[in-house]
Amino acid sequence: MSKLVIVGTVAFDAIETPFGKTDKILGGAATYIGLSASQFNLDASIVSIVGGDFPQKHLDLLSNKNIDISGIEIVKEGKTFFWSGRYHNDMNSRDTLATELNTLGDFNPVVPKNYKNAEIVMLGNLHPIVQSSVLDQMETKPKLVILDTMNFWMDTALNDLHNIIKRVDVITINDEEARQLTKEYSLVVAAKKIQTMGPKYVVIKKGEHGALLFHNDNVFYAPALPLEEVFDPTGAGDTFAGGFAGYLAKTEDLSFENMKNAVIYGSTLASFCVEKFGTERMENLSRNEVHKRLLQFKQLTQFEIELT
Amino acid sequence: MSKLVIVGTVAFDAIETPFGKTDKILGGAATYIGLSASQFNLDASIVSIVGGDFPQKHLDLLSNKNIDISGIEIVKEGKTFFWSGRYHNDMNSRDTLATELNTLGDFNPVVPKNYKNAEIVMLGNLHPIVQSSVLDQMETKPKLVILDTMNFWMDTALNDLHNIIKRVDVITINDEEARQLTKEYSLVVAAKKIQTMGPKYVVIKKGEHGALLFHNDNVFYAPALPLEEVFDPTGAGDTFAGGFAGYLAKTEDLSFENMKNAVIYGSTLASFCVEKFGTERMENLSRNEVHKRLLQFKQLTQFEIELT
Repeated sequence: MSKLVIVGTVAFDAIETPFGKTDKILGGAATYIGLSASQFNLDASIVSIVGGDFPQKHLDLLSNKNIDISGIEIVKEGKTFFWSGRYHNDMNSRDTLATELNTLGDFNPVVPKNYKNAEIVMLGNLHPIVQSSVLDQMETKPKLVILDTMNFWMDTALNDLHNIIKRVDVITINDEEARQLTKEYSLVVAAKKIQTMGPKYVVIKKGEHGALLFHNDNVFYAPALPLEEVFDPTGAGDTFAGGFAGYLAKTEDLSFENMKNAVIYGSTLASFCVEKFGTERMENLSRNEVHKRLLQFKQLTQFEIELT
Repeated sequence: MSKLVIVGTVAFDAIETPFGKTDKILGGAATYIGLSASQFNLDASIVSIVGGDFPQKHLDLLSNKNIDISGIEIVKEGKTFFWSGRYHNDMNSRDTLATELNTLGDFNPVVPKNYKNAEIVMLGNLHPIVQSSVLDQMETKPKLVILDTMNFWMDTALNDLHNIIKRVDVITINDEEARQLTKEYSLVVAAKKIQTMGPKYVVIKKGEHGALLFHNDNVFYAPALPLEEVFDPTGAGDTFAGGFAGYLAKTEDLSFENMKNAVIYGSTLASFCVEKFGTERMENLSRNEVHKRLLQFKQLTQFEIELT
């Protein structure tokens, strides 16, 4: 089993969907990634920052999932990063109602000493300079660095973004962002262009339409599980990334064939995330439930064709 | 091998895409369905109508693919149905520039005597009353009736549409049409509702996002092959339906497991259709090319996961 370092936000979210709304609840990219990866009982650490207003029970939740939280800086006099958003009826688009950076504005990530030799690094969505500083701190070259990012950094820090993209092995990005980054409409062409920017593996997330994994001329496609009801999409992409990174850390097999499985695990875990508000479903998810859903994914996608 | 009856338009299309435009070329739902199904060397017949302006070479093309054309009525003094459309840059939406019904306005389909006992009937997109009249002519109950339709009939002939929907085993419909027909956003819920209207099997086509097959609580998902370039999407849905119907007619196995394969064959053949304008690619498609692409679909979707 490989050590896994996760960097990203640990935050408060307030969410509105057609099904209801929440007060400030636990959120953040690193939180979702960590909860998802914790399904694999890893030696994992979250590197992040919160304020004095962040409840101990949330930190305990992560600790109880066997996640090392010594890399989460607590700024007693500061406030925790806060995001608020409202989803439209189709659940595929949302408006941001509020973004309060708070302590995140001065975030200088510090990788705990005993994770500076981690084999796998998962860079959750953050300013590309912050993501780079995590890589700078690694004492041994990680076997795999996975980057998640978003259009906001393309709009505001494109050069910095290109600098971190150069340094990673895998990028996860959604379809519109892949198009924005490459100015190509075809996702196949976009994925090829992104591979020339650095990452040998490109995962394009298409929300309810699943995810594509590209590597050289190889493509693999994992659908999203068709659901009767998507309750709250918040964190689905991070949960996908956490499942992807966690499975690779657990199995220590970085072949394309095994990355297919990692994508399936990511989709499987993301299908739970959207069933309840926030992190609720991921906090209470049994191994048995995950296995049952993996079998559903098999029935959904596997076939035995005879050539006629 | 089961006999297959295909009813639908045989037509002229004029198409504009970002890649160019065509004059009047061969088109029509039954044409695409027939060309696709002909990959399986079936005993298949097209029931349709054309005008005296329809070139013999197009009829010969179908005959040479071993398709019985005795059910294609030729109205010497009439003109052939004509459709013209322009695709937008994203290739997912289009404007209809012209629709000239011509002979299609008086179409009374006549099923050839020796196909009135066909086991499989594929009802291509047409007025629901015309589709019904084909079923009325069958002397033995077909083992499988497949219906394709579109939003136009929901807007203009909803009662007639419901009457034919009641009588079929499989419906193929796109995602927006499924939503319109059921007033449900979730495709899972929509597919369940449609099953209560008659068809035991529901295929929801999502264009570049693939297709879903529903039956009771079973779901199967076939992606579209990710392509560098979609040249002309015209006929892709019909080509899908033709592959689906043709495979089932060939294999004579109407189980859900075999329908999975039929969906994969449909997606495979549709992936060729969009590579060139109109029917060009489907006119010249070798068994070997199809087999190679089926292997690509396997690599795209199949995985060997071990539960961790």
